[in-house]
Amino acid sequence: MRKVFQAELHQVGEQLVEISRLVTEAMQKATTALDTADIELAQEVIAADARIDFLQTDLDERSIDILALQGPVASDLRMIVGALRMSTSLERMGDLARHIAQLVRLRYPDPVIPESMRGTFREFAEKDIAISEKLTELLEARDLDLSAEIDMINSRVNELHAGVFKAIADPAWDSSGPTTVDVSLASRYFERFADHGVSVSRKVTYLVTGEWRPNGQSV
Amino acid sequence: MRKVFQAELHQVGEQLVEISRLVTEAMQKATTALDTADIELAQEVIAADARIDFLQTDLDERSIDILALQGPVASDLRMIVGALRMSTSLERMGDLARHIAQLVRLRYPDPVIPESMRGTFREFAEKDIAISEKLTELLEARDLDLSAEIDMINSRVNELHAGVFKAIADPAWDSSGPTTVDVSLASRYFERFADHGVSVSRKVTYLVTGEWRPNGQSV
Repeated sequence: MRKVFQAELHQVGEQLVEISRLVTEAMQKATTALDTADIELAQEVIAADARIDFLQTDLDERSIDILALQGPVASDLRMIVGALRMSTSLERMGDLARHIAQLVRLRYPDPVIPESMRGTFREFAEKDIAISEKLTELLEARDLDLSAEIDMINSRVNELHAGVFKAIADPAWDSSGPTTVDVSLASRYFERFADHGVSVSRKVTYLVTGEWRPNGQSV
Repeated sequence: MRKVFQAELHQVGEQLVEISRLVTEAMQKATTALDTADIELAQEVIAADARIDFLQTDLDERSIDILALQGPVASDLRMIVGALRMSTSLERMGDLARHIAQLVRLRYPDPVIPESMRGTFREFAEKDIAISEKLTELLEARDLDLSAEIDMINSRVNELHAGVFKAIADPAWDSSGPTTVDVSLASRYFERFADHGVSVSRKVTYLVTGEWRPNGQSV
């Protein structure tokens, strides 16, 4: 019985890693689509999001079954409750990649991001993808240094996000209403993606150390 | 033992109702602050959000303790896992009321919403508050008709949200960059608030009927 249980727990962990990998892939494609106004790539991201949603629902049901049938305690229980929460955050990260792809589709063949903001959004993309990659690694290896690195990258994402809002507020900003909204929404998607990444990494830390840092002090 | 357990379950339910009430109050104050550029009311909402966050964390810990100590099964287990999820959504609704209040504080003494949009945002406020009130009632009384009503109000919120984006895209739209962003963000906060309300109401339905409707068909 115990052996079956450990195998089930292990599977839950594996599935989190798989979801995290799919999220990274979605973000890579969505940001490339954003940079190159590539509608086919955008459609691909939108279609692939259903797979992430399915895996999340499946993982949730699996976790609830484990709770019901095994009545786990202590660190096993923490792991299951943690998995329930992490899967929700990862699924939202997938949604955010999809939202970026949907902006690309909405404006196609026009680019979503005006020329003056391209550099900022390329850096956004690079940072968010880095967070997602480190998250996958963290879920696999439980190396808490990665959590500190994710916090640091997230700080930079927050700076970029603040910079976008400052640019929009500048009298020199001359884009149309819809472009202004697109830029602010896209910026918010990148910021939320990174923030969910931090939230998952914090849950991993909690699982490993038992210490919860809701207010996000760095490690 | 069983009696203690039922009392604990009951407490979890009561605490969800309490959080839902605080969320309603936060949204009432935040929307009044938005309509009247009332900075003191906005500050009150921002300060009161800590209480919602505290109650959510407390409820989560309590739920995890119940899982650990009682190993509940079947409908009791569903109730606890449901509570863990609902508290997360309710806490986010509180955050969204706070975000609205923060917009008021950011632009004070100027109003956040331009004159031409005031009517729309008053209706947004009315609908979101109605959703929040019905949610509290639903959590108390488990009357599933309320869940269908929440779905209907949410449809109207989605229409309002689409209307805002249409207005911004109109060539006649002549607000500044920051105002455009504020309006689109505020609109999104109202839309997200309603959406989380729907998500909580769906979880209540799941608890009562055991049927999960992730795609949001109405009851």
